[in-house]
Amino acid sequence: MSSDFETEPGNQPGMEAGAFRDADDRISPLWLERLRAFLGARRAEDVALVMEPLHISDVGDVLEYLDHDERVALVRLLGDQFDYSALTEVDESIRLELMEALPNAEIARGVAALDSDDAVAILEDLEEADQNEILSALPTFERLSLKRSLDFPEDSAGRRMQTDFIAIPPFWTVGQMIDYMRSQRDLPDEFYQIYVVDAGYTVLGTLPLDRVLRSQRATRIEAIMNTNLVLVDASEDQEEAARTFERYDLVEVGVVDESGRLVGVLTIDDMVDVITEEADEDIKLLAGVGDEDLSDTTVDTVRSRVPWLVVNLVAAVLVSLVIGLFGATIDQMVELAVLMPIVASMGGNAGAQTMTVTVRAIAMRELEGSRLKRLIRREMIVGFINGVIFAILIGIVTWLRYSDPQLGIVIALAMITNMIVAGTTGILIPLTLNKFKADPAIASAVFVTTITDVVGFFAFLGIAGLWFGLF
Amino acid sequence: MSSDFETEPGNQPGMEAGAFRDADDRISPLWLERLRAFLGARRAEDVALVMEPLHISDVGDVLEYLDHDERVALVRLLGDQFDYSALTEVDESIRLELMEALPNAEIARGVAALDSDDAVAILEDLEEADQNEILSALPTFERLSLKRSLDFPEDSAGRRMQTDFIAIPPFWTVGQMIDYMRSQRDLPDEFYQIYVVDAGYTVLGTLPLDRVLRSQRATRIEAIMNTNLVLVDASEDQEEAARTFERYDLVEVGVVDESGRLVGVLTIDDMVDVITEEADEDIKLLAGVGDEDLSDTTVDTVRSRVPWLVVNLVAAVLVSLVIGLFGATIDQMVELAVLMPIVASMGGNAGAQTMTVTVRAIAMRELEGSRLKRLIRREMIVGFINGVIFAILIGIVTWLRYSDPQLGIVIALAMITNMIVAGTTGILIPLTLNKFKADPAIASAVFVTTITDVVGFFAFLGIAGLWFGLF
Repeated sequence: MSSDFETEPGNQPGMEAGAFRDADDRISPLWLERLRAFLGARRAEDVALVMEPLHISDVGDVLEYLDHDERVALVRLLGDQFDYSALTEVDESIRLELMEALPNAEIARGVAALDSDDAVAILEDLEEADQNEILSALPTFERLSLKRSLDFPEDSAGRRMQTDFIAIPPFWTVGQMIDYMRSQRDLPDEFYQIYVVDAGYTVLGTLPLDRVLRSQRATRIEAIMNTNLVLVDASEDQEEAARTFERYDLVEVGVVDESGRLVGVLTIDDMVDVITEEADEDIKLLAGVGDEDLSDTTVDTVRSRVPWLVVNLVAAVLVSLVIGLFGATIDQMVELAVLMPIVASMGGNAGAQTMTVTVRAIAMRELEGSRLKRLIRREMIVGFINGVIFAILIGIVTWLRYSDPQLGIVIALAMITNMIVAGTTGILIPLTLNKFKADPAIASAVFVTTITDVVGFFAFLGIAGLWFGLF
Repeated sequence: MSSDFETEPGNQPGMEAGAFRDADDRISPLWLERLRAFLGARRAEDVALVMEPLHISDVGDVLEYLDHDERVALVRLLGDQFDYSALTEVDESIRLELMEALPNAEIARGVAALDSDDAVAILEDLEEADQNEILSALPTFERLSLKRSLDFPEDSAGRRMQTDFIAIPPFWTVGQMIDYMRSQRDLPDEFYQIYVVDAGYTVLGTLPLDRVLRSQRATRIEAIMNTNLVLVDASEDQEEAARTFERYDLVEVGVVDESGRLVGVLTIDDMVDVITEEADEDIKLLAGVGDEDLSDTTVDTVRSRVPWLVVNLVAAVLVSLVIGLFGATIDQMVELAVLMPIVASMGGNAGAQTMTVTVRAIAMRELEGSRLKRLIRREMIVGFINGVIFAILIGIVTWLRYSDPQLGIVIALAMITNMIVAGTTGILIPLTLNKFKADPAIASAVFVTTITDVVGFFAFLGIAGLWFGLF
């Protein structure tokens, strides 16, 4: 393998044969080929050796690059050395496929070693029967704490939280606390603050670790704890929780149940994933793509995209019916058929611009009283100004193309009309959908383009019919 | 004011008169009205009193809700109590407007109190003359460290980094380190790890704070430090740095200069902003909206959107020229003009779906050898299957509408053609743009819709002309 390497064009100085990532920061094909050879030959020790230095997110990447049989082989050959938290780093479809191929007892052993948030992420998508079988193979304490997390609604803070945390009473000193932590064996893997609670686990304050390290041993905890509390309800949606992190620049936050007891913590790394997913979801919904992964099968992809295309077909047929009203007009002046898509297309694009700005502003909670009024006013004026600019441009182009100033005037009037409508619907449709608690990212696009198409064709053909006396 | 409150419909139990946020988590109109009254009456003490409990991100929100004169009044009335880091939480246009209205000497006083990353964020957009005047009013150490950050390219890790950090030698013990930290007055505001460096400031290891708290005082630092180093180059793009945070679930990372010396640190809160901005940018670029803020003026908005609309106009005229080739065909059969937008529109939507999935996969670095080939194959098959489904649907609809099975067959054939083209261009265009180092989010949409429009009209009118012998 290493002799092949020197002929590889992507070879970079300083890159050794067998390096995990190549110069473009992708998993090196050579590295992957070697792993595949070890997997094929069932050489467990070599597999363990090449996988050992990888971070779990890299292990996740490797799993995504392998095919099904190789993935199963990798997990089984690694045995107890396989860290199941890598499964939180792969697409849902790959995770489910892998879980199905592995015996539940093996999964239970892997899950028992995980932090509670990772364990929940792995278990939550399983069928209930499998979930129960795995849970029943876990030690009581872990089982109960996972069950409690799984009882919270999907995508809630309670589902995402880690149930291990450090809680201490307010009357301790810094020294007592440090001694306590030095003596504990089962502290959480990583933590950034300590919770100060009363006997009923109500949070009295929080203590960032850096503050502990700045304080003298004799200092009482309650004297230095942060009492300006930011907490999250376990039943709260994870997106709300993520927004709290963003707003207050948090790294960790306590999660409380309905009676105000501290039941877990959320950390920023989980929230970064939520923020990324949320933005990704908005982008895809705006384009009519649902909850889709790159690794979805062809059939799943078709199934997820067809509904949106059906809606669009209905809209397109509707638009075509509107054009049909003007069949006789077009028949008398075929240039109209040639020019009409221009007005519709410009309206569609201008509408999409305004709509996108509005959908994002709604998603980021940036619209309120005075800002909302300001945005509506601005977008209508922008629609008018753009309408005038493009009316003049297309008017001149049409006049020159057909040597007919009147046709230029007609298309210019239709353009202004449609651009103003585009600006107005681009903002009002997402706002209306939001008012009725529909996700504006899902449905706005089809409404906006249907309206700008209908108005574009209707205005152009209608004005032309009136102007040239074709009705 | 509090008597008004009881009549307010949004009133929630537990919400006190004068609460900052209402039940919808927006700034309470009553609260804002009161602040405005204080600002108008120049009641500095009352202003300070209502602003005092707010987190800086809330102060940023308040600034965005006020109008220009009120903003200036707020900053000046608060004087030294105004925390300039709130300016990092507002839109760029508001920040610049405010900085212009304030004397440079006052800004310098405010900036001097900030962490270096916040100071850079505030200074970087100013004109060079103002920047230099403010810098020259700062103490030497702050001035030099800010200058160094500002010398790094825009949007680089060096610009975003915080230059305060804790670096200790490897031969210290945990006890020595804790004593050192307890004795220091000017530690960074918040920190999550400690850097272990040699005399030349080359990083030897890192030490998360939780690991310090688990260790006995006599333990030597080098025995517990983390030597599996993840560092970021100061010249690296902030988006690359953000990806490193995401990949390795980091909270803080060291930034090194070209000679490998530790020069600063990046923390996760800055990276969350980068991640959010990046996704937001992609969404907007896909819709032809540039680097735009909600608070931009009408003129700026028009200026940012017109170029995209001009490109679209050129594309639309091109499409119209293609239709023009078939003027005589349409003239003989006006139904073609009525039906033709359906084929183009369906292709445009299917193309947008594939394109969006591809653009996001490129942005998230998810495409490589085998996955890429898989995606191309999948999208082409999806295009074919959707083509067949919608060919049958529109064929039947057209047949019924015009009682003409032949017209149904023609539109069905055009639909299959255009859906396959849509799937193919939807994936190949972003990939090609990416290959030529263009941002696929910017330009893909106009290419894809132009191609699906041209192919849609050309295929439908061309097949119809051949089928019905209209040429």
